[in-house]
Amino acid sequence: MALENGDKAKDESSPVAAVAAAMMKDWTLFMLRLACFLATASATIVMALNKEKKTLVVATIGTSPVTATLTAKFQYDPAFVFFVVANGLASLHNLLMIALDIFKHKLSDKGLCLLIVALAAAGDGAATFMAELGKNGNSHARWNKICDKFGTYCERGEGALIASFIGLILLLVITVLSILKLHSKPKLTTTHTSSVIP
Amino acid sequence: MALENGDKAKDESSPVAAVAAAMMKDWTLFMLRLACFLATASATIVMALNKEKKTLVVATIGTSPVTATLTAKFQYDPAFVFFVVANGLASLHNLLMIALDIFKHKLSDKGLCLLIVALAAAGDGAATFMAELGKNGNSHARWNKICDKFGTYCERGEGALIASFIGLILLLVITVLSILKLHSKPKLTTTHTSSVIP
Repeated sequence: MALENGDKAKDESSPVAAVAAAMMKDWTLFMLRLACFLATASATIVMALNKEKKTLVVATIGTSPVTATLTAKFQYDPAFVFFVVANGLASLHNLLMIALDIFKHKLSDKGLCLLIVALAAAGDGAATFMAELGKNGNSHARWNKICDKFGTYCERGEGALIASFIGLILLLVITVLSILKLHSKPKLTTTHTSSVIP
Repeated sequence: MALENGDKAKDESSPVAAVAAAMMKDWTLFMLRLACFLATASATIVMALNKEKKTLVVATIGTSPVTATLTAKFQYDPAFVFFVVANGLASLHNLLMIALDIFKHKLSDKGLCLLIVALAAAGDGAATFMAELGKNGNSHARWNKICDKFGTYCERGEGALIASFIGLILLLVITVLSILKLHSKPKLTTTHTSSVIP
């Protein structure tokens, strides 16, 4: 009889603790998703609005200078366009997951989540090395640096890259936490209680 | 009594089916890992050995031509160096997982696996857009294409990229399958409570 009471007490307390722990985990995931959305969305917006015009004196005829206006835009580089698309898709994915979370819909999206991680990482890799080329140039290929002419453009690009890397790290943490949540969830729980009273 | 026999039959048959299904899954994962290792290792080796020398006539003094020897190497571009490191690490990771599988060691490496996916994707993104720049150039930044001069170098680089993308896709499939395996695995499951009161 004492055993039965103990079991009953356990049955009553453990669901409460489990629900509390699950809520805590859900809350952490929600906040991480929000931070991740903010980071990737900032990266997308900053890079998409990145543009700088520069008027340079290219020659002087007599006393009048001949000027040329050069423009640096993210659209001019396919790597930066891919960066904007990748971070934009990561933002949309996070927004969708937040919305589903608010409306209590459950979506098991491990495959999609993994694709978004790969896409964001590819975008970051492409943009980082293109930015490095813009900053330092490549003497072997005779590609000159452009950041000496377009300082503001390069600084903004750097900001977008940093935001995007923060977003990628958060995306990785969210994915690992989601997998761990999946792992810790008890799947099939069968309780056999046989009382043999002759 | 009939119920007891039914349970016994079920207990005897289901572990055999479960073991067979698990072995089939393990075998598929093993083959996928092997293919992934071969793809990423090929990408690493082809890119790491990619080098082309070209002797060009830059001027003629009298009748004797003045030549210059230009060399294209993967080491000259940080994006390609990163590509080699990323694919090399992905190969090592796959090799380690294959070895652990052969020696029947279990390692739950979901976090590491995710990092490898992100690393390989970043390497592929960086190298793809750098290769695109080498092939087409960028008129806005005044970066000339180099593939018209270094055709063989560019073709080999393309081959390495294709192998690497196959490796990345296989890596994604392996990770999704591993997560699904985790999901389908029953965790803790049976609680037998028998109270025999004579």
